[in-house]
Amino acid sequence: MLTHLLTTNELKVEEIYQILSDARKFSEGMKWQPAKQVFTANLFFEPSTRTKSSFDMAERKLGLEVIPFEVLTSSVQKGETLYDTVKTLESIGVNAIVIRHQQDRYFDELVGKVNIPIINGGDGCGHHPTQSLLDLMTIYQEFGRFSGLNIAIIGDIRHSRVARSNADVLTRLGAEVIFSGPEEWFDNQSLSLSKFRPIDQAIKEADVVMLLRVQHERHQQKGSFTAHDYHKQYGLTIEREKLMKPEAIIMHPAPVNRNVEIADSLVECKRSRIFKQMENGVYVRMAALKRALENLEGGNNNETAYSKRLLHSI
Amino acid sequence: MLTHLLTTNELKVEEIYQILSDARKFSEGMKWQPAKQVFTANLFFEPSTRTKSSFDMAERKLGLEVIPFEVLTSSVQKGETLYDTVKTLESIGVNAIVIRHQQDRYFDELVGKVNIPIINGGDGCGHHPTQSLLDLMTIYQEFGRFSGLNIAIIGDIRHSRVARSNADVLTRLGAEVIFSGPEEWFDNQSLSLSKFRPIDQAIKEADVVMLLRVQHERHQQKGSFTAHDYHKQYGLTIEREKLMKPEAIIMHPAPVNRNVEIADSLVECKRSRIFKQMENGVYVRMAALKRALENLEGGNNNETAYSKRLLHSI
Amino acid sequence: MLTHLLTTNELKVEEIYQILSDARKFSEGMKWQPAKQVFTANLFFEPSTRTKSSFDMAERKLGLEVIPFEVLTSSVQKGETLYDTVKTLESIGVNAIVIRHQQDRYFDELVGKVNIPIINGGDGCGHHPTQSLLDLMTIYQEFGRFSGLNIAIIGDIRHSRVARSNADVLTRLGAEVIFSGPEEWFDNQSLSLSKFRPIDQAIKEADVVMLLRVQHERHQQKGSFTAHDYHKQYGLTIEREKLMKPEAIIMHPAPVNRNVEIADSLVECKRSRIFKQMENGVYVRMAALKRALENLEGGNNNETAYSKRLLHSI
Repeated sequence: MLTHLLTTNELKVEEIYQILSDARKFSEGMKWQPAKQVFTANLFFEPSTRTKSSFDMAERKLGLEVIPFEVLTSSVQKGETLYDTVKTLESIGVNAIVIRHQQDRYFDELVGKVNIPIINGGDGCGHHPTQSLLDLMTIYQEFGRFSGLNIAIIGDIRHSRVARSNADVLTRLGAEVIFSGPEEWFDNQSLSLSKFRPIDQAIKEADVVMLLRVQHERHQQKGSFTAHDYHKQYGLTIEREKLMKPEAIIMHPAPVNRNVEIADSLVECKRSRIFKQMENGVYVRMAALKRALENLEGGNNNETAYSKRLLHSI
Repeated sequence: MLTHLLTTNELKVEEIYQILSDARKFSEGMKWQPAKQVFTANLFFEPSTRTKSSFDMAERKLGLEVIPFEVLTSSVQKGETLYDTVKTLESIGVNAIVIRHQQDRYFDELVGKVNIPIINGGDGCGHHPTQSLLDLMTIYQEFGRFSGLNIAIIGDIRHSRVARSNADVLTRLGAEVIFSGPEEWFDNQSLSLSKFRPIDQAIKEADVVMLLRVQHERHQQKGSFTAHDYHKQYGLTIEREKLMKPEAIIMHPAPVNRNVEIADSLVECKRSRIFKQMENGVYVRMAALKRALENLEGGNNNETAYSKRLLHSI
Repeated sequence: MLTHLLTTNELKVEEIYQILSDARKFSEGMKWQPAKQVFTANLFFEPSTRTKSSFDMAERKLGLEVIPFEVLTSSVQKGETLYDTVKTLESIGVNAIVIRHQQDRYFDELVGKVNIPIINGGDGCGHHPTQSLLDLMTIYQEFGRFSGLNIAIIGDIRHSRVARSNADVLTRLGAEVIFSGPEEWFDNQSLSLSKFRPIDQAIKEADVVMLLRVQHERHQQKGSFTAHDYHKQYGLTIEREKLMKPEAIIMHPAPVNRNVEIADSLVECKRSRIFKQMENGVYVRMAALKRALENLEGGNNNETAYSKRLLHSI
């Protein structure tokens, strides 16, 4: 039975807390490494600095070997399907695979057919579970709880993998999630309109102001806003920051469009946890990889049943 | 004296068996590592998933360090020649180099002038020795012999590096090689026409049905076949598979064009060794690298005579 | 206090000699490794084989972990700034960073704001300190001194990062630097015209003939020379090589345009140190990385004060 990590929706609450607990331990210096050589590959079909580098870092901190893969110079250029690419890497001995792909739920064509765990690094406009988990870690680090917190998710909600995943999981963990931003970007199919708030109210009430990136590259047509207009109407301006509660924090999945979603000078202000989120991303991904690898039981032809020989140490 | 691996034609029969023997031992868990840090580089001037990842895996399993090289971001973009690129890597301390290049016999301008062993990862429409060797390993694993076997190589023979290499080496090892596929793609200069068979007869008589990839990217003009027509006339259809001998196996160098060379549902059928070939590719490449490295004798300025200090262990 | 390496101009003479001394020791087999896992990243925004591979080699020889970064598949494609990219890598735990960037003095927007040392791998038409240092190492290796040497820097002086850096530093170290090449490519703003010599005279008097690459990719308009004309007027032709002093050597930062800056047959002649320069580049970069890492003192959030635990051994 493979332990994929595909969406946060399918994680039980105790699994979430287990990952967060391991991530915290990794942040405090816990060492965990497989007892033998373990191979991973990071398949990124969309540009990424943060997520890809973060997985690369997590893998190396766990002592894993990373088989390089670049879409631009792979057989994907000869028309090879995702399924055949993954089966190839499985056949040559890769033990776990991280995938970011532009297609929503790309993993549906893989699960049940491949014999190595898949960690979803982002699917289309769908899910991005390790981003959600690092957001959770950052919030928990700050407040020591989720229940009773008011989380405002603000911005390009329809195109955001993060909005959907986070809204669901934070609600399950006891937080109150509200949304703000341009109403025409609000996805009323999956999110209740009753949760929508005007921007100033959202910012005033929130313990966590979670800004979303304006995903220029996902908008089918040119947006209806100039950067300046967006910032003025929906961004965290220097004025709006002053409305925030004393202990409230600012989060953003990055890359940030400075002076669009957030004023330049606020990116590294005292309230901002934007770079802390990136740091936490490494620990969360270490925990996700550990979870995938320690549950491996002879799924891979080449490397059967090695999970029993994995070493734990603190 | 450097031990390049350029074509199977120049390998003596005992050298082939030595590589296959080492590859088998690696598949059974043999460990072999150089006693000191050894550096390799994989120069792929054409897209590849299988071959490049397989070398990357083999190198890491042998504990070698891999210096990254991407053509798109290298000085090849400033017009640097292959010779100067290889000399550069030699100068900075790379001990062995894997090259795939679009030019037939690209290695002719290197051999005798560079001081590190070259392993050919594919040259133009020429050779692909590690693919041949992994095909041999897969056949030998199945039948325990080559003599008396009937091998049918089917498809785009003129553009295939594999067809040429395999036909030669399998014949030398005692197998009977026949060809099938579109007659206009048959290369009557280097291959005897007497070996050509109609597709149904070839499939009926073969112990090994070795399908070749339709190399869209190498055809100078648009092929004369639709995918559907090719499949019906020359592909391994579901009907043709039923003509195969009971113990006969299916091979394909991949990437597969599903429903062109072979019916989708046959790619992973019981007879198929297509993914087994990929697995074997890693072991064969480990053996090829071991062969290149253990014969190094002071060829590299930086790392002289370290081959004597190489450790063998099983 | 971070130990960046940005330009040779800001290196004191004793710092230069310290780096050269460490580089020499590395060339003689000195081992030096951090006591714990240290992470680097090489950000190359312009094509490179030599410099990038050389850093990759140096990092691996020091036992450092290299986090892969490719501009083409990074968030730079989504408009992320250099500053945000570097802060991201810092946040995920990268301890030192190598950057090549097309913008002159790109590092001015980073220094004082990032908390990891930057090693400049080349900025626009500005500086390239590790190239200068490897040139110094090669000259010192040959002559055991700088004072009294006559160094002729010949060619595309205005577009060369190397010319500027080398002229400055060699003069400070006591050498006499003169220039030659096309007068219209001579940068009379920063270099004294009194140092300009006709080509034959420059070559006759020099202990070191340092040829510069014609940087086709940096010329805003098509050059006024054909390759043939350039070679005849300003190149090191077979005839001009005969004018050189008996012990004089030839240097070139490479990649070489053969039969433009230098006759093809002279690239690997007895006088040429072109490939020796590349070999020395690895040792100089090892020394530069050692210098950056052993001076780290709690600059990085994740890895505080580890420099005290670094091990030295010879």
